[in-house]
Amino acid sequence: MMKLTISKVTGRARLGVITSLGQNGEKSLEVPGCLLYTKTASPPHLTHDTLQTIEGVPPVTHLTLSSLAEHQEVLEEYKEGIGKFAGLRDAVLYCSVGDPVTPSPSGYNTNKTVSVWGSGGRIELTPQKFMSLQSALKVDWFQCLSDGEVMPSGCSRKRAKKSVDRSLGFLDECLQLLGKNNELKEKVVIGAIEGGDLLDERLRSARETAKRPVGGFLLDGFQGSAMTSETKLNLISSVTAELPEEKPRFMHGIGRPDEVIACIERGVDLFDSSFPYEVAERGCALTFNHQYQPDPETAGGHPNPDRTPGLNVLDEAELCDKEKNGEDQTEKEDKEIDQSQMTSYEICLKEKRFREDFRPLLPGCTCYCCRNHSRAYIHHLLTVKELLAGILLIIHNFHHYFSFFHSVRGALREDKLQVLKEVIQRQTS
Amino acid sequence: MMKLTISKVTGRARLGVITSLGQNGEKSLEVPGCLLYTKTASPPHLTHDTLQTIEGVPPVTHLTLSSLAEHQEVLEEYKEGIGKFAGLRDAVLYCSVGDPVTPSPSGYNTNKTVSVWGSGGRIELTPQKFMSLQSALKVDWFQCLSDGEVMPSGCSRKRAKKSVDRSLGFLDECLQLLGKNNELKEKVVIGAIEGGDLLDERLRSARETAKRPVGGFLLDGFQGSAMTSETKLNLISSVTAELPEEKPRFMHGIGRPDEVIACIERGVDLFDSSFPYEVAERGCALTFNHQYQPDPETAGGHPNPDRTPGLNVLDEAELCDKEKNGEDQTEKEDKEIDQSQMTSYEICLKEKRFREDFRPLLPGCTCYCCRNHSRAYIHHLLTVKELLAGILLIIHNFHHYFSFFHSVRGALREDKLQVLKEVIQRQTS
Repeated sequence: MMKLTISKVTGRARLGVITSLGQNGEKSLEVPGCLLYTKTASPPHLTHDTLQTIEGVPPVTHLTLSSLAEHQEVLEEYKEGIGKFAGLRDAVLYCSVGDPVTPSPSGYNTNKTVSVWGSGGRIELTPQKFMSLQSALKVDWFQCLSDGEVMPSGCSRKRAKKSVDRSLGFLDECLQLLGKNNELKEKVVIGAIEGGDLLDERLRSARETAKRPVGGFLLDGFQGSAMTSETKLNLISSVTAELPEEKPRFMHGIGRPDEVIACIERGVDLFDSSFPYEVAERGCALTFNHQYQPDPETAGGHPNPDRTPGLNVLDEAELCDKEKNGEDQTEKEDKEIDQSQMTSYEICLKEKRFREDFRPLLPGCTCYCCRNHSRAYIHHLLTVKELLAGILLIIHNFHHYFSFFHSVRGALREDKLQVLKEVIQRQTS
Repeated sequence: MMKLTISKVTGRARLGVITSLGQNGEKSLEVPGCLLYTKTASPPHLTHDTLQTIEGVPPVTHLTLSSLAEHQEVLEEYKEGIGKFAGLRDAVLYCSVGDPVTPSPSGYNTNKTVSVWGSGGRIELTPQKFMSLQSALKVDWFQCLSDGEVMPSGCSRKRAKKSVDRSLGFLDECLQLLGKNNELKEKVVIGAIEGGDLLDERLRSARETAKRPVGGFLLDGFQGSAMTSETKLNLISSVTAELPEEKPRFMHGIGRPDEVIACIERGVDLFDSSFPYEVAERGCALTFNHQYQPDPETAGGHPNPDRTPGLNVLDEAELCDKEKNGEDQTEKEDKEIDQSQMTSYEICLKEKRFREDFRPLLPGCTCYCCRNHSRAYIHHLLTVKELLAGILLIIHNFHHYFSFFHSVRGALREDKLQVLKEVIQRQTS
């Protein structure tokens, strides 16, 4: 059975480690941390050999039920679980209901069912069906079925209350089925905390869920921009205050470095890594600086100056300054690039300005892509729509994102979280 | 300077080796053989680390000018050549004018220019521009600029004659420019033999090209189905009879195992590997048997029974028999798959019948994909449109195709080409 040990608390931020993971209990996961995001049970675009070459890959792999539900029959026939089916040997597996990248449409959940969308359309899950799906998947941890759709701001009190009631009902039913199933008995159930933007419903959800024998909590329904950032953070603070210290708190769909730090400061432990994937999918590379050490000699994207002695300082201005694109032609062509989703933590390799930029994505970065390829080459691959662009970008972005969490833990350990927060804040627009 | 040594001739088929390749002349390429196909200078969907894990990768990498011409300015600015730009360190590079997968449209060549199409549209190449592009690319071998569009059957004698005249003119002009350029002097020029389906023009093209100081020959314009197979093969026989023994003969766009063997029997040495790529792109895996050893215990896809002791014999009937799909639903869904391009050497993993098929793509195959994944998993990846499907399929298809050429050479060495030919013929529909 997994065990969370908190070694240090700074304000509400928790530094610790979850131990006794895996077949023989020999694996551990540091918090604050992230899970390895997968697209239908495969790390996006990566063979496992390639994944091995990335530094700091989280030991827990994150699957999403919505992409797997339609394969129930096949997995039941297969009998050996999704881990072996997808070639994820040895990985510790966690399964959430929804996919942070493609949330399910609202309005389909009922008192008896939760709907998820696969490539073949909608699948209605009753607690019974959900639990037999879990029997076929054979993951280590799973988020319990919950009425977790993101609600529009100012939704009715009735709807928010219903989400809490339904989710508690599903949780009770699933726990009861779990008790009857020898194979599932050992599994860790993560309880989802719902309640929209209503504080009292959130608190009720947290308290009631905490009374049940769950192994951890998912603060659900905070994705997207339905609530203001302030409302979200206040709710998160209030919810985590109700939760027992010894169980981990998960959040999905929150991935920007500034938001991650804000949530960590409010007691959240675990995030997913869909953010670096989404950045890669739009042809962008993470280039934000997460160096909390004050030494300007080692400032840059990497937390470990020992490994990158020749680290070049990335021109921070460059990251935001789109006006650099002097030529008219360049501006015109770049206008065709959809930058509406871009954050200030990334550069878009589709832009013409990288056409003759022979530096690595992030000077000083030690990832496979930065060691072997230039921005100009990635620009070229994107121009000709060769898939290798996506592969190389996800390699870099995962590497960079995992090292960001490494920095967060280092900063907590060394009482430097405020420094890191300011470094990130300076790059936030 | 590269050197071809023929060790054995069977009929017209040549077994040999091209030596003195690479920076220090330490590399060699066995013939009959194939080149490593690339898509805009990258092996499709593969990082170089992943490429390393494939057995039998050809030491010569094949680039296509059409995909690189638009990057001339960038490469001129870069100064270090396409090999380093694309991270293809150490590779021996060969550059053809056209891409076998996407031939240029006909009707654009003139007496002074040849047109190629990149992602940004048409680019007109004069011999002058072509040679400065080659200066920027810095490959080891390149096909000379030629008027090589595939001509419709029964095209005018005038058009066929013009293709020969123009190509000889381009060759002379390029060779003259080459003489004046110190950097290019050492490069190997491959002369293209044109002439449509006219025997006398083909012979004139072969004889005249052979008089020039070229390092090898490309039998150009035989792709597609404009000529009957018989016409093609007769022309190929006649052309190779005119060519000096000591220089290699290339063909592009001919990749089916039966066609490759027919060309080898007529004296062709080198092919490209766009065929396994195209098979992977349509969601298919090569599963043809190329075992020429008579022992039924070791029959199967692999040439080296020592490495695959538990080799299961693949049910040959399975490869062709589409009627196996019993269920109506399955048939209906499979109808949406475009099978018009499929050959009898492959299986389509999009088909429903693989949904619960937990065997590897090709039982007994030692490639990364077959060692780690099942048909059902690849089917699942294709269903959800995850790019990893394409990556795993190209790994398998390259592995299988390279081992097919290994078998061809083994069969020639052991006087078994006829056996191999019959094995292939039995699988041809």
